[in-house]
Amino acid sequence: MVRDAPQDQVEVRAPILSSARSPGEGSDLCLALDIGGTKLACALVDRSARVHWQDRVRTPRATDAEALFRVVRDLAELGLREARGRGRVVVCGVGCGGPMSRRGGGVEVSPLNIPAWRGFRLSERLHATFEELERTILAESTAPGLPLFVDNDAKALALAEGWTGAAAGERDYIAMVVSTGVGGGIVLDGRLLDGANGNAGHIGHLIVEPEGHDCACGARGCLEAEASGTGIRAFTGKPPEEAGPELVERTGRLVGRAVASVANLLDLKLAVVGGGVALGYGSRFFLGAQREIDRSARLQHSQGCRIAPVALGQEAPLVGAAAVGWQGFTGKRP
Amino acid sequence: MVRDAPQDQVEVRAPILSSARSPGEGSDLCLALDIGGTKLACALVDRSARVHWQDRVRTPRATDAEALFRVVRDLAELGLREARGRGRVVVCGVGCGGPMSRRGGGVEVSPLNIPAWRGFRLSERLHATFEELERTILAESTAPGLPLFVDNDAKALALAEGWTGAAAGERDYIAMVVSTGVGGGIVLDGRLLDGANGNAGHIGHLIVEPEGHDCACGARGCLEAEASGTGIRAFTGKPPEEAGPELVERTGRLVGRAVASVANLLDLKLAVVGGGVALGYGSRFFLGAQREIDRSARLQHSQGCRIAPVALGQEAPLVGAAAVGWQGFTGKRP
Repeated sequence: MVRDAPQDQVEVRAPILSSARSPGEGSDLCLALDIGGTKLACALVDRSARVHWQDRVRTPRATDAEALFRVVRDLAELGLREARGRGRVVVCGVGCGGPMSRRGGGVEVSPLNIPAWRGFRLSERLHATFEELERTILAESTAPGLPLFVDNDAKALALAEGWTGAAAGERDYIAMVVSTGVGGGIVLDGRLLDGANGNAGHIGHLIVEPEGHDCACGARGCLEAEASGTGIRAFTGKPPEEAGPELVERTGRLVGRAVASVANLLDLKLAVVGGGVALGYGSRFFLGAQREIDRSARLQHSQGCRIAPVALGQEAPLVGAAAVGWQGFTGKRP
Repeated sequence: MVRDAPQDQVEVRAPILSSARSPGEGSDLCLALDIGGTKLACALVDRSARVHWQDRVRTPRATDAEALFRVVRDLAELGLREARGRGRVVVCGVGCGGPMSRRGGGVEVSPLNIPAWRGFRLSERLHATFEELERTILAESTAPGLPLFVDNDAKALALAEGWTGAAAGERDYIAMVVSTGVGGGIVLDGRLLDGANGNAGHIGHLIVEPEGHDCACGARGCLEAEASGTGIRAFTGKPPEEAGPELVERTGRLVGRAVASVANLLDLKLAVVGGGVALGYGSRFFLGAQREIDRSARLQHSQGCRIAPVALGQEAPLVGAAAVGWQGFTGKRP
């Protein structure tokens, strides 16, 4: 059976790695992998977003792409071994730092915070890993292949918050991360937007201050240049944690301006925001953002747009990776 | 049979008004209605975007909602009569000025350029009209209902340009109108975006100059306040046609800035732009826009984004209305 995979989620097939129990026992599980610049994490998550097991390691400061992948591979193997007795892994979902591109049926990733991977063929390599594991240590597998879906971590977060977080039950919203960088994912008409290469939702390069600071991307006044930790550090010369109340409010205001533009553009009324800068700055940030939204989202369809902190905590990236997996597996947003 | 109508296209059923010929003869036709502030137009358009017949009248300067609707009704009746001998009308598609909202299964329209209609229940009224026509003058109808789909004119234009215009074959693009106002429609992942109330794509209120001119919406520095005919007239005191080269280039630059932000946000690389201001300003406008896009769309996924004039001429709104109809009828973008 070939499923009709959503645009940017490339499905790669490998033999299924069943648990030691028969298919009837335990839950169907998703092997969830979260690949970020700070940590690598793995979990077993069922269809109800329940996390049955998880583990994480610090992302090695490797300059060698293979050394880094070996850690990811080991985590995945550990997860599959842990599935025995707990349930049956039927899909693998991966959230990874962007940007990414699709090439020849696979996903290549170049996470900004993982310099060792540039154009790294993540889906192809995971596919080969699952095949190898099936041949060697997990030969009791019975089903014909483990479907694999890869998406960027901000889009995974958007799915997670809509599944069981601050956007639960919503059909139209944006989820954002305001942290080292600024990223996002958009759900519209009940669907996660992908875009030509799977990078839709990337709100960090909306221009919010045309005469503002230079952005690493080469443009000027991007939200990321003005409101990310990296941007704030660049133009103040200090860590973002040391920002005074005015700068905190300004950061909120500029995020609010971007949200208002998106609300006007896309006919949506909810932004859920996470990330160290936003959550660290707290209520002054959110109040500054909400005031700017009230000022600038004035259309019939955007009035009343609100901004709220994400609801999921530390588990959000893994729940998001699982959401990517389940969405790919079922064809529906979980 | 109840079709699963796309989000903002409310399907309203009335008896089918077949032509005088048997169903086997002639083409399947869409009764296309274009409702704008300047003109009202009607056409019979087949599945290949061929216009078999069309007529148009100047939009009456009525302050009476009913007087205006009578003209629309007469046009629709004329179109259905003209279908006899040409084919069989199987669907009605309507493009109408925004904004609009969905209420109780119907579409209410409040076109900015048609002050007589505020919260006008367009789909409900057209539905009743088709029923009435079936009972009286077109009683030879045989099929059980004429499906009706309503969408805003900028989204209809986006469908038209993707069907047979400057975005033909593209899965990810924005179509814009820079005219009295500024509107747009976005196709992403091969689908026309709707948003919560069907107003997605409304790029006119992206904020492009935070310290810019006051916008009619209540915000400041919206693209519409800076680049629409109304905006230019307001801040120069002159008709937009009298703009000098600097203002023409500035208008292009600000449109380009909005397009770059959208390209970065949504992972798309094509903007097709129509409307009297854009097309009237011509190459200087488009060059100014393209330069700004080159400066500001610098991400891996947005580099190379280009802006181009729309390809469809005067028939675009009617082809767009037909595209709304056919998309609703078949469930697929034509």
